[in-house]
Amino acid sequence: MKIAFVIYDGVTALDFIGVYDSLSRVKSMSFDKDLFIDICGLEHTIKDSTGKIAFNIEKVGYSLKNYDMVIIPGGLGIRRLMNDEHFISYIKTVNPEAQLVSVCSGSLLLGVAGFLKNKKVAANKKIFSCMTDYGCEVVDKRVMVDGNVITAEGVTAGIDLGLFLCGILYNKDIMYKIATQMEYQLPENFESELF
Amino acid sequence: MKIAFVIYDGVTALDFIGVYDSLSRVKSMSFDKDLFIDICGLEHTIKDSTGKIAFNIEKVGYSLKNYDMVIIPGGLGIRRLMNDEHFISYIKTVNPEAQLVSVCSGSLLLGVAGFLKNKKVAANKKIFSCMTDYGCEVVDKRVMVDGNVITAEGVTAGIDLGLFLCGILYNKDIMYKIATQMEYQLPENFESELF
Repeated sequence: MKIAFVIYDGVTALDFIGVYDSLSRVKSMSFDKDLFIDICGLEHTIKDSTGKIAFNIEKVGYSLKNYDMVIIPGGLGIRRLMNDEHFISYIKTVNPEAQLVSVCSGSLLLGVAGFLKNKKVAANKKIFSCMTDYGCEVVDKRVMVDGNVITAEGVTAGIDLGLFLCGILYNKDIMYKIATQMEYQLPENFESELF
Repeated sequence: MKIAFVIYDGVTALDFIGVYDSLSRVKSMSFDKDLFIDICGLEHTIKDSTGKIAFNIEKVGYSLKNYDMVIIPGGLGIRRLMNDEHFISYIKTVNPEAQLVSVCSGSLLLGVAGFLKNKKVAANKKIFSCMTDYGCEVVDKRVMVDGNVITAEGVTAGIDLGLFLCGILYNKDIMYKIATQMEYQLPENFESELF
C-alpha cells in the first residue's frame, strides 16, 4: 500500500496532520511497519495557510500514478491552485482507480481535475455551493465514501477520515486501538454509517 | 498577549497543530489580528515523532521569560529531554507567573522543570504513573486548569485545549465560532466543567 499526501502553499496544517497522525500510528504501533507514506508536492518546502508552519516535501514533482491512495488536505491555497494548470496536471497524474481522498476544500482540486463526476462527496460547509460545478452531489456528512472517492468535511473531520482509512485498509479493531491511543472519541454513528 | 509554542525533535505533530489551529484562527478570523504567536525551540529545524514532518523554529534558543503563555506539546522526544539539562534550563526561563500549558506527555517537561508542585494536571493516560514524581495530582479529565497551569490529556485533547484557550483569552462566543469553522464538536460537558 503506497499512500501520497499532496500538500501545497496555503494548506491548513490540521487538515493534513489530522489524517497523517492516525495513518502514521499504523507504523509506530507496529500494525504494519511497511505502510508506505510519501509527502508529495511541487515545491521543496511549502508553508501552511498561516505562513508560520513550513513543511518539507519528500517527493517533488514526481508523477502520482504509482500510489494506491492520494490524500489532498484543504486550505486557503486551494483557490489559487484551481486556476493553476501545472498543479491540476500534476493531480491528474493519479491512477484514476486509486483511492482519491480529500479533506475540507481539498475536494475542489479533485473536482477541477475531473474525478468527482456523479460522485457523492463531503466537503467544508462553506464550499458546498461551489462543489456542484464538478458534477457531484454534496452531502452533509463528516466522511463520505463513493466508490474510490473518499471525502471529509472541514478541518477536524480529517481525524475521523484518517481513522476510517485505518479501518478500511486494515480493520476496525486496529482503527479503535489507534483512536484510543489518540484519545479520540469517534462520533456515535461513525461505524454504522461507514462500515 | 504573547504565546510561545515550544517544540523539539520527536514532538507529536498533532499535539502541536491541534492547539495551534484554533489559536491561529483568532487572527485569520480577525478576532484579534495582533495575537502574537512564536514557534520556539533550541534547533533551527526539528522533526516530529515519525521523522517525516519537519518544522522550522522561529525563535531559536531565546529566553521564554517574555511570553504570557508557553505551550508544550507532547511526543516521544520528551523522554530524552527529561534528562537533557540544557533543555530543562531552557524551559525554566519561563516567567513562573505565565500561563503554562501542555498537551499529552508535554506535562512531563513542566513537571521536571518544577512547575507542577501541588497542581492538578491532565496528561496522556499512559504516563499517569510517572506524573506523581513531580508532586502533582493527575486527574482523568480532557482539559484541567489549576491556577496558571493548564494541561490536556492525549493528542486530540489538544484541539479541545486550543479552543478552551480561545475561550479564556477572548470569550466563549469566539471559542464557539472558531469550533464551528473547524467543524469540531466540543464534548457535552466542556463548558460546564471548564468555565
